[in-house]
Amino acid sequence: MIIAQKFGGTSVGDADRIANVANRIKMYYDQGHSLVVVVSAMGHTTDHLIDLALKVNPNPSKREMDMLLSTGEQVSIAVLAMALERIQVPAISFTGGQVNILTDEKHSDARIQEIDASVLLKAMKEKKVCIVAGFQGVDKEGNITTLGRGGSDTTAVALAVAVKADECEIYTDVDGVYTTDPNKVPTAKKIERISYEEMLELARLGAGVLHSRSVELASKYGVVIHVRSSFNNSTGTLVMPEEKVMEKVLVRGVTLKSDEARMSAMDIPDRPGLAANLFGRLAQANVNVDMIVQSGGKNSLNTISFTLPESAVTNAKTIVEAFLKETGGTMELDQNISILSAVGVGMKSHSGVAASMFQALAKQNINIDMISTSEIKISVVVKKDQGKKALEAVHEAFGLGQS
Amino acid sequence: MIIAQKFGGTSVGDADRIANVANRIKMYYDQGHSLVVVVSAMGHTTDHLIDLALKVNPNPSKREMDMLLSTGEQVSIAVLAMALERIQVPAISFTGGQVNILTDEKHSDARIQEIDASVLLKAMKEKKVCIVAGFQGVDKEGNITTLGRGGSDTTAVALAVAVKADECEIYTDVDGVYTTDPNKVPTAKKIERISYEEMLELARLGAGVLHSRSVELASKYGVVIHVRSSFNNSTGTLVMPEEKVMEKVLVRGVTLKSDEARMSAMDIPDRPGLAANLFGRLAQANVNVDMIVQSGGKNSLNTISFTLPESAVTNAKTIVEAFLKETGGTMELDQNISILSAVGVGMKSHSGVAASMFQALAKQNINIDMISTSEIKISVVVKKDQGKKALEAVHEAFGLGQS
Repeated sequence: MIIAQKFGGTSVGDADRIANVANRIKMYYDQGHSLVVVVSAMGHTTDHLIDLALKVNPNPSKREMDMLLSTGEQVSIAVLAMALERIQVPAISFTGGQVNILTDEKHSDARIQEIDASVLLKAMKEKKVCIVAGFQGVDKEGNITTLGRGGSDTTAVALAVAVKADECEIYTDVDGVYTTDPNKVPTAKKIERISYEEMLELARLGAGVLHSRSVELASKYGVVIHVRSSFNNSTGTLVMPEEKVMEKVLVRGVTLKSDEARMSAMDIPDRPGLAANLFGRLAQANVNVDMIVQSGGKNSLNTISFTLPESAVTNAKTIVEAFLKETGGTMELDQNISILSAVGVGMKSHSGVAASMFQALAKQNINIDMISTSEIKISVVVKKDQGKKALEAVHEAFGLGQS
Repeated sequence: MIIAQKFGGTSVGDADRIANVANRIKMYYDQGHSLVVVVSAMGHTTDHLIDLALKVNPNPSKREMDMLLSTGEQVSIAVLAMALERIQVPAISFTGGQVNILTDEKHSDARIQEIDASVLLKAMKEKKVCIVAGFQGVDKEGNITTLGRGGSDTTAVALAVAVKADECEIYTDVDGVYTTDPNKVPTAKKIERISYEEMLELARLGAGVLHSRSVELASKYGVVIHVRSSFNNSTGTLVMPEEKVMEKVLVRGVTLKSDEARMSAMDIPDRPGLAANLFGRLAQANVNVDMIVQSGGKNSLNTISFTLPESAVTNAKTIVEAFLKETGGTMELDQNISILSAVGVGMKSHSGVAASMFQALAKQNINIDMISTSEIKISVVVKKDQGKKALEAVHEAFGLGQS
């Protein structure tokens, strides 16, 4: 088998952990598999490099930041290759550029455009384990670029596609993807199989484990991702095409985001183009809006409500106030909210899911401020201090907890 | 003017020092010069990386070591470029590979074979200060190589040649090249001008400031090297063609090496090929022999003496003992020695230099164990505990001290 593996920063956090990772790789190698291994920077390396940069320049150019940060992964690949050499596993390390990971020119958030796998295939033919720096590539001028948050996951999936890997294992510090955050709900259960769509929704809702861009890529090429822990040998979560996810459930997982705020533009005229105008301005200012709800009011006046990260509130306030000056209307801001979401492809065909969710909340006397639904997701806004109780109730209502 | 500058690890040791270096570069840039700046890894970065490597593998492959160590310089170039951006100096950083520093494949001690300066010339035309990682290149397969000790000096000189620089400034933590080590002889004086040949001899004798390979390269292409301090603005030492070194002196500098040993193969047959045999074996075992002296003994028996680094003694002993088993003869080892050398192109035409040196030593009652001379160098072996006194006497005898 050809297997792509990715080890995150925690998994290669120090010399001992690197030796552990090497032993795991050796196990696969001894079984005769061909391996392409992607690694992130060790532990807090990236943070330290950022600190160093900010000391000399509070606002460094993104090109130089990429030049700097890409060294973190380069250290990891060299050290992991050395650890493998020590236990007689032939290994060779490669930077992103050396294995032709060609990206666009958007420094700090580049997209992979093309991978020429010939270098990797040659090394694999020579029975070498290929260790590739995650998170980085080069643009067509040869400048070093980085892929942004979670970029190493994307590298792993992209390389899995390029070398036609049979599986892509993403090793992390948790056992897999859970029905909800086990730190918030102790009965949370590991999910065995999850569809790309569900994983994408969960990733967007902040279920950290996988970055959404890597899931999109895996979905596009049908790569099965196995999310698992580098600290034990148990099976983790398989992220795969919907039709292969055997166990059908209504709701796969539940998430709670508590660093959000709700903003409303109230009593604005019911005129075409106003919403486009408002959200166009917000997008231009890079304000990441999540839920959007519009409800008709009385007297042909409308109210548009949306949620946004708390960190974007100051910025958004200025924009909304300017907008309301032109249209008329008032602004309302609520920073005391949480967003609770239930995700599952089963919702597509079962209309009762929303009702079950609302019932579960009602039973706990939890008021719903805002509702938004998509094909496989229902999100509700609740008061922040009721967030945890709401999460537990919904998690339980859909039978997600451990029995 | 086109100026190549090199800043060593101490000069870029922390954020403040990097800001200092940036200010110095700005001064040159504001005067309208085109600059190619080579930097080493910050402070003790390289040592820390080596420590990390040895933790996972006591004997890592040189390829992976090069992959690892080259990150040190990459961090420096990015951070220096950021520091320049902060003070409005347009700058762009490059790894060795990005500016096409092509080397042979000898990892950890590679030689530069070719530099295609087009990338640098383009950036210079765009009025950007080019910041290049010292010490590193790539072989023709794209593997990262490093140039060995003092490699950044070599990078600076090689780039000076490639971009046809008018001057090559090597910034370091001392004021320039001294007549002898100021820590040993307080009256040691800064040398204003020195020929390539003299600098080469001094470098080989351990006068740290410049690495001999960089001097060889400068000599080959007639590049004037200006060795100076990054902590002040005073003129340092110019390393240049002999004919341009105006001030003629008999002896330019004096050095003392105290980590050497003397080994003798005594009473061996006087037969052709025996010396070649012995030193061939030593060379094959990478024993770096410095002085070699052969003197005819009685009864057609010879004695061959040579000096070698103390660290190579164990290794060499085995070889010499095996050799003597075949030829007959006995071994003598003296680890209590120092090598004192006087260097100067003036010696070429003045035969009295050796005599003056011996007289100066005799006056101090210092016994000479071994003598070896070359065109511009005289080396003598003295007892280790007399080394410092001998150094002072010879330094004084040739009028090298400050008046």
